[in-house]
Amino acid sequence: MPRYSNAANLPLNIVPHAGASLPAQIAEQVRDLIVAGTLAPGDPLPSTRALATELGVSRGTVVAAFEQLSAEGYLAPTKGGTRVTENLKLQKMPGRTSGQAQRADRMEHPRPEAINMQPGHPDTSLLTSAVWRAAWRTAAASPGTQHPPQGSARLQEQLAEHLRIMRHVVREPQQVLITAGARDGFRLVLTALRQQRRNRPLRVAVENPGYPSLHRIPATFGHEILPIAVDDNGLNPARLPQRQAPDVVLVAPSHQYPLGASMPVARRLELIEWARANDAYIVEDDYDSELRYTGEPLPALAALDDAATGRVITLGSFTKTLTPGLGLGYLLAPDATREALVDLRRDLGTPVSSIVQDAMADFLADGGARRHIARMRRVYGRRREALLHMLEHVPQWVQVLPMDGGLHLVLRFTCEQSTPQVEAQIVERLAQRGVAVARLGEYWSGPVSAPERPVHTPPGRERNRAQQNPTDPHERRDIGLIVGFGGVSEHVLARGAEALTSVLGDYS
Amino acid sequence: MPRYSNAANLPLNIVPHAGASLPAQIAEQVRDLIVAGTLAPGDPLPSTRALATELGVSRGTVVAAFEQLSAEGYLAPTKGGTRVTENLKLQKMPGRTSGQAQRADRMEHPRPEAINMQPGHPDTSLLTSAVWRAAWRTAAASPGTQHPPQGSARLQEQLAEHLRIMRHVVREPQQVLITAGARDGFRLVLTALRQQRRNRPLRVAVENPGYPSLHRIPATFGHEILPIAVDDNGLNPARLPQRQAPDVVLVAPSHQYPLGASMPVARRLELIEWARANDAYIVEDDYDSELRYTGEPLPALAALDDAATGRVITLGSFTKTLTPGLGLGYLLAPDATREALVDLRRDLGTPVSSIVQDAMADFLADGGARRHIARMRRVYGRRREALLHMLEHVPQWVQVLPMDGGLHLVLRFTCEQSTPQVEAQIVERLAQRGVAVARLGEYWSGPVSAPERPVHTPPGRERNRAQQNPTDPHERRDIGLIVGFGGVSEHVLARGAEALTSVLGDYS
Repeated sequence: MPRYSNAANLPLNIVPHAGASLPAQIAEQVRDLIVAGTLAPGDPLPSTRALATELGVSRGTVVAAFEQLSAEGYLAPTKGGTRVTENLKLQKMPGRTSGQAQRADRMEHPRPEAINMQPGHPDTSLLTSAVWRAAWRTAAASPGTQHPPQGSARLQEQLAEHLRIMRHVVREPQQVLITAGARDGFRLVLTALRQQRRNRPLRVAVENPGYPSLHRIPATFGHEILPIAVDDNGLNPARLPQRQAPDVVLVAPSHQYPLGASMPVARRLELIEWARANDAYIVEDDYDSELRYTGEPLPALAALDDAATGRVITLGSFTKTLTPGLGLGYLLAPDATREALVDLRRDLGTPVSSIVQDAMADFLADGGARRHIARMRRVYGRRREALLHMLEHVPQWVQVLPMDGGLHLVLRFTCEQSTPQVEAQIVERLAQRGVAVARLGEYWSGPVSAPERPVHTPPGRERNRAQQNPTDPHERRDIGLIVGFGGVSEHVLARGAEALTSVLGDYS
Repeated sequence: MPRYSNAANLPLNIVPHAGASLPAQIAEQVRDLIVAGTLAPGDPLPSTRALATELGVSRGTVVAAFEQLSAEGYLAPTKGGTRVTENLKLQKMPGRTSGQAQRADRMEHPRPEAINMQPGHPDTSLLTSAVWRAAWRTAAASPGTQHPPQGSARLQEQLAEHLRIMRHVVREPQQVLITAGARDGFRLVLTALRQQRRNRPLRVAVENPGYPSLHRIPATFGHEILPIAVDDNGLNPARLPQRQAPDVVLVAPSHQYPLGASMPVARRLELIEWARANDAYIVEDDYDSELRYTGEPLPALAALDDAATGRVITLGSFTKTLTPGLGLGYLLAPDATREALVDLRRDLGTPVSSIVQDAMADFLADGGARRHIARMRRVYGRRREALLHMLEHVPQWVQVLPMDGGLHLVLRFTCEQSTPQVEAQIVERLAQRGVAVARLGEYWSGPVSAPERPVHTPPGRERNRAQQNPTDPHERRDIGLIVGFGGVSEHVLARGAEALTSVLGDYS
């Protein structure tokens, strides 16, 4: 069997102006070489530069092909260059017949290994750049640094620049407070506001459905949670309680979780106006707005607010864009509030590692974070497209809500007979097939069976299914599945989608 | 001028059985070569192995000499071996006369550069080992890990082993909860206990004087602080309020801060018994017990307690032993309490970076932490001895309390005329000479001038001064200076000690 390990002489045949793009042609042919066993797990690929020269294409074309195959799980970047993924599991590897036959075989006999399609898991396997490694090396070499309670001045500067470019929020570096993540920031805000309000429990309005992990924090400290049903445009300020106004409204205006609505500007301004009139604060959970696939993301809510005297406190982190294990985030708050937060932080101590702060300051300064996020946006965009395509044959009573951004799709059950029990059964049957997904019903505050005001279809370009199945204004809380695609390569997504289609088909 | 950069042929002349030890002779002669300019800043030293062979001494002898010079600031370990410190500032460097003349010159003209002798600052410049760097490299290469709320299982295992060896506390790995540091752990404990006690504010007994940074946390959350005066044996359980017993007693039983008392075993058992009888918890702040210079440290208080049904919650971190910027610590708690803490952590989210956890697990597993702590104990022990020696000529009314461990000495003012105003003036005059120290008077809870029960002399082997000036049982709260030596090399300590002796002398 021929091997092509160390040179650019892979037997590839590129045809310009053919049906498929050049990167797609390269990816297809390299994939076939891997599936056929010509390239074995661990084999090095030629450098992108050498292969580009050999094929007479631009280096970017080869990079795009390699990124595609990395995203699919076939290739992995290593210290010595790109290689075929070491632990790549292809069925009947010993036999090594033709690629087509093997792939067909794989589709016919899905392996029972676990496929994690729970929402919210980013793919961290591509976070391996030289800039990333250098940032940590440098940070570990100066372990004595101890940053002040508000965080490293250099990181504040880098984050101010990052937020200006990515979220269109213009703030001075000293207006950025470094946190250990969105939950750490939210906890700090609640503690400060409670002190400000004479230590009485706060009234905290939250979106319904919403992100349970943030809702648990006020609940833990005995604050009152007021779930507010969202509609097509996210949270509606008009639905906030008229008397005994909330002290805090927690919203994800750019990408409501999990239904994906984006608040239009008019409603954003209305919300800020409401907060001013009611001496309340808006906590903006800006959790994954950088990951947008269709059009540009709306600026953060904070961009509409006054940096000195405003009402919006923005929480952000790198949980979705880089990795959930980083232990670093940030918080923007109007000046007076922020000063109280920094004072509080001084008394309580910051939990944020100075080494992590130094590494992230370098990673942002050297452009590593920007490039990684741009790359992941392309990777996730392809995975999202692929998954949407793979889910074309789900039954008619399952409405696929594609989302404009983020790391998940929602499969909403529109059938009258779809009950929370059916939802639970379907998740259980998928789990038996090794596919983990989340229940949409569990993202509602309070018991799922309680009557609730309607939730409309979130916006999105591919709304044809939604329009075929208009939401009944009298229906109960939505149920269905939340299906993540962030941490799953495309060839594994295919197995997950097959299981989904098959299990859902059994209920038709 | 001869240069001896890359070989073992330094012109050293070692005399066995002479007055000075072999390491001291080597250190003295290398120091002279540096001061004379024969070895210039940045010059590499021969390897310890090569130099030991050349001189016919053991390698340990050369290592000890190099460590001594590193501690003094003359040498610095680098990736390629030990070198003369790059930014070493010797006066009149261009002239480069004899070493003796130069050192005399340096002592006569102290530079006005800042000397930080505030307590609690470790020297992090020696945290540069290959094991440390490798631990961070490996951790950064797997950025996708996300550890559970209680922390990384591997780090739990390593910490259980570390605590068994260093603190004689035997716990199962799952009984160790990973925190972002002592303050993060204390905050978590207070939140859980408040929930357990129907959300009423807690009564928190603290040592007086004590560590203000931990006292601020219960104060911030509206708990009641009960300062309990310490005596020679630390906190006395008999002084705890009889009715309305505290819910929590915060103590540093191994090394009371700042006065240095160590609680004897009988009193420790008495305290645990008191906690059982009063349904209270003891929070043990085990902040620097690994750094002990005279004799073995007493085991942690937790070692006397029952791991399942006990009353002691131990807080620890690597702030003093490695670096304050790490953002990682640990907590030991009896089983039922710990389960509540982990549940709470699950709801609130852990602020601890998974990358930091992975790096520390490696650093502990590879023995890097143990070796670094052993080395720093030697370095700090020498600095402590040197500083005690340098302070021999302070006035008689200043009582030097040497401490058995830790990173500071206490200079207690025993004169009747010594007032908090004098204390403030002295600190101010030292600051004008570039020397930063802390005021002992500021470590008392409540106003310094308030009458208070007496504080006796802390124990220590070098008590002659203390015995010459017995504590008046009716005197007010102690005042004086707290002088750190952790982050200051010996040749800088000498300048600090000279300023101290001179300023204190002015008040005699």
